[in-house]
Amino acid sequence: MTALPFSQRPSADGLWTGLRDSDGQPLALTVADGRIAWLGAPEALPAEAGALPRHDGGGALVTPGLVDCHTHLVYGGQRANEFAMRLAGASYEEVARVGGGIVATVRATREASEDDLFGAASARLAPLLAEGVCAIEIKSGYGLALEHERKQLRVARRLAAAHGVTVRTTFLGAHALPPEYAGRSSDYIDLVCREMLPALHAEGLVDAVDVFCERIAFSLEETERVFQAAQALGLPVKLHAEQLSDMGGAALAARYGALSCDHIEHLSPAGIAAMAQSGTVAVLLPGAYYTLRDTQRPPIDGLRAAGVPMAVSTDHNPGTSPCLSLLLMMNMACTLFRLTVPEALAGVTTHAARALGLAATHGELAVGRAADFVLWNVQEAAELAYWFGQRPVRCVVRQGRIAEGAL
Amino acid sequence: MTALPFSQRPSADGLWTGLRDSDGQPLALTVADGRIAWLGAPEALPAEAGALPRHDGGGALVTPGLVDCHTHLVYGGQRANEFAMRLAGASYEEVARVGGGIVATVRATREASEDDLFGAASARLAPLLAEGVCAIEIKSGYGLALEHERKQLRVARRLAAAHGVTVRTTFLGAHALPPEYAGRSSDYIDLVCREMLPALHAEGLVDAVDVFCERIAFSLEETERVFQAAQALGLPVKLHAEQLSDMGGAALAARYGALSCDHIEHLSPAGIAAMAQSGTVAVLLPGAYYTLRDTQRPPIDGLRAAGVPMAVSTDHNPGTSPCLSLLLMMNMACTLFRLTVPEALAGVTTHAARALGLAATHGELAVGRAADFVLWNVQEAAELAYWFGQRPVRCVVRQGRIAEGAL
Ligand SMILES: [Zn+2]
Ligand SMILES: [Zn+2]
Repeated sequence: MTALPFSQRPSADGLWTGLRDSDGQPLALTVADGRIAWLGAPEALPAEAGALPRHDGGGALVTPGLVDCHTHLVYGGQRANEFAMRLAGASYEEVARVGGGIVATVRATREASEDDLFGAASARLAPLLAEGVCAIEIKSGYGLALEHERKQLRVARRLAAAHGVTVRTTFLGAHALPPEYAGRSSDYIDLVCREMLPALHAEGLVDAVDVFCERIAFSLEETERVFQAAQALGLPVKLHAEQLSDMGGAALAARYGALSCDHIEHLSPAGIAAMAQSGTVAVLLPGAYYTLRDTQRPPIDGLRAAGVPMAVSTDHNPGTSPCLSLLLMMNMACTLFRLTVPEALAGVTTHAARALGLAATHGELAVGRAADFVLWNVQEAAELAYWFGQRPVRCVVRQGRIAEGAL
Repeated sequence: MTALPFSQRPSADGLWTGLRDSDGQPLALTVADGRIAWLGAPEALPAEAGALPRHDGGGALVTPGLVDCHTHLVYGGQRANEFAMRLAGASYEEVARVGGGIVATVRATREASEDDLFGAASARLAPLLAEGVCAIEIKSGYGLALEHERKQLRVARRLAAAHGVTVRTTFLGAHALPPEYAGRSSDYIDLVCREMLPALHAEGLVDAVDVFCERIAFSLEETERVFQAAQALGLPVKLHAEQLSDMGGAALAARYGALSCDHIEHLSPAGIAAMAQSGTVAVLLPGAYYTLRDTQRPPIDGLRAAGVPMAVSTDHNPGTSPCLSLLLMMNMACTLFRLTVPEALAGVTTHAARALGLAATHGELAVGRAADFVLWNVQEAAELAYWFGQRPVRCVVRQGRIAEGAL
């Protein structure tokens, strides 16, 4: 059952007919050189398209390839044992005493070789690719030391090459304070800004920079220092903001023109206004909300009223969202956060692409964009959010190849 | 990518080595004639097993085949549009005005041919089988007239034969009042008891009898009339009980020796005591709880203290749980209901089998039981509940064949 190497999967070049768009309207498109070369109503097809190799979608509904815009996919170990202990009644302190929590993942990530991390992350990537994810963000942040952050980001680049998936790397050195810097938060932020970020940027490993701004992580002032370092290098920023409390992080991020603010359960009206003004995407992470049994929903009505684009992502991570389905996140975004179906679909396509700085190339079906699209075994687009726990994919075209499934 | 017909899938007969049980201990077993013929520590293997065909599990964790003990898998249509309308702000009344709600499913089920229903249900069954479900309950209850209830139950029997999966059929004629009986609930119960149930039983289509006992469905007195009719035919009963309110249904069901009471969010201490005494299984349905955004959790602590066996199921249905993953229900049972990992695993194996009257043949790995088992790509059993939105299956042995995946 081993899949062919990506480079040997069938080319999607040519004419695609027998498709319906998410409104159910008939659609045809052509693929060439990994891009959509033409797209429109079947009756408007240019005559020369008749000579192209033909792929018949059999009436399948087609959407843009999905974009998972917030993940921590590369790490060592997993924390199922901690999950089980907590359910059996262990306190956070008891879990910490046996070495649990984020430090467990930091330790396992540091101990793992690059090949180990690549193998484990490839296995986790597989179900996401199989359900139509074509572009994904991968953060560092479990190494918390130059060599180990580098290892994580190198693995992210290798995943892109090996699996033919668009990967945007995010440097999240300011994810947690490493144990060896206990009590010296400011020194660690110096290390992040002066050594880690410049070095990793110089190696071409950093597409964006993120910080976990929270009482249990880094302060607003520390966050801003990291943003300044990113800005000096011309790198876009994002922020883990207002997940557990309103720190004012979103407004700060907006001042730095952040691509996205993520989590934002406790986002204030001022934060919403700032994000609206800067065009920052709100990334909603219902998997973490669900796993943490949070009850503070992000201010969806306020975001909607202000016209802030909303994306939806897995936040895949071993502690608070061991989730490997973006379709399930669409369902949770609807069920738990009350997004509409069109909002949820835009949230895993066009707005997710924008959250990664990929608005010009990904997240929509349009001429010139990446030939990343998914044919679904459904009658209507609403089914993508309605069913949960399944994967109604017929086939996935990724980077111009039939990468998953078959016609 | 079409799977082989079940009868042509490879035989699992012979010796299975390289397995670990859910505690991580090495295990070997032999399969013959669709059953487990021997099982124990590898070093205790009888000498003659050496001559058998050999299957090497490569160190995989093995569990009993999963049992999904409460589903409404066979129906016409789906209700994604209603899901989308509700999210867009439509009231229940507006949905009803466009023909939504359970009556939409009743209409679509009545209009569908047996072959249509078989095709649609087969497609929904596939993801459940792929994640290791080896036995499943399928209820009628969307026909609400003899010929249409018959059609649903016949499809359930066909699914068993076509896919090599153990199916227990449950007659749920008393699921909802059909439109043509509006205001004549008692007359409809007469029809259920005097015509539908005896006829379907005579045709060998009924393994158990269920009722939806609720203010919006059937009363306690009506429920008891159905139970009496079942008892007269020697059929076991189950009950949709105390989902929305405490009707006292569980205690009634316990008096009739019910196999299970299902939902039970509003179960009282008296109901728990009655279930404990009768040995009735509590079937927990977190998918419906989640979809309905219910906040009243079943009384898990009380059930645990009383020693009531707890099962976990998808409750797959098009209205309140369009869920097609039993693994996800394990995660939700842990996350939302705070079951421990061992409880969740027992809930989809041994206790689920008991809820179907299959305690002697399914739900455990033991000599003489069905050769239904799953090899998992995980290090420890807790991962089955910890990860969500994926399907870490290496292969599934069902009814003595390698039915899904491969070694
Ligand atoms: Zn995150
Ligand atoms: Zn039900």
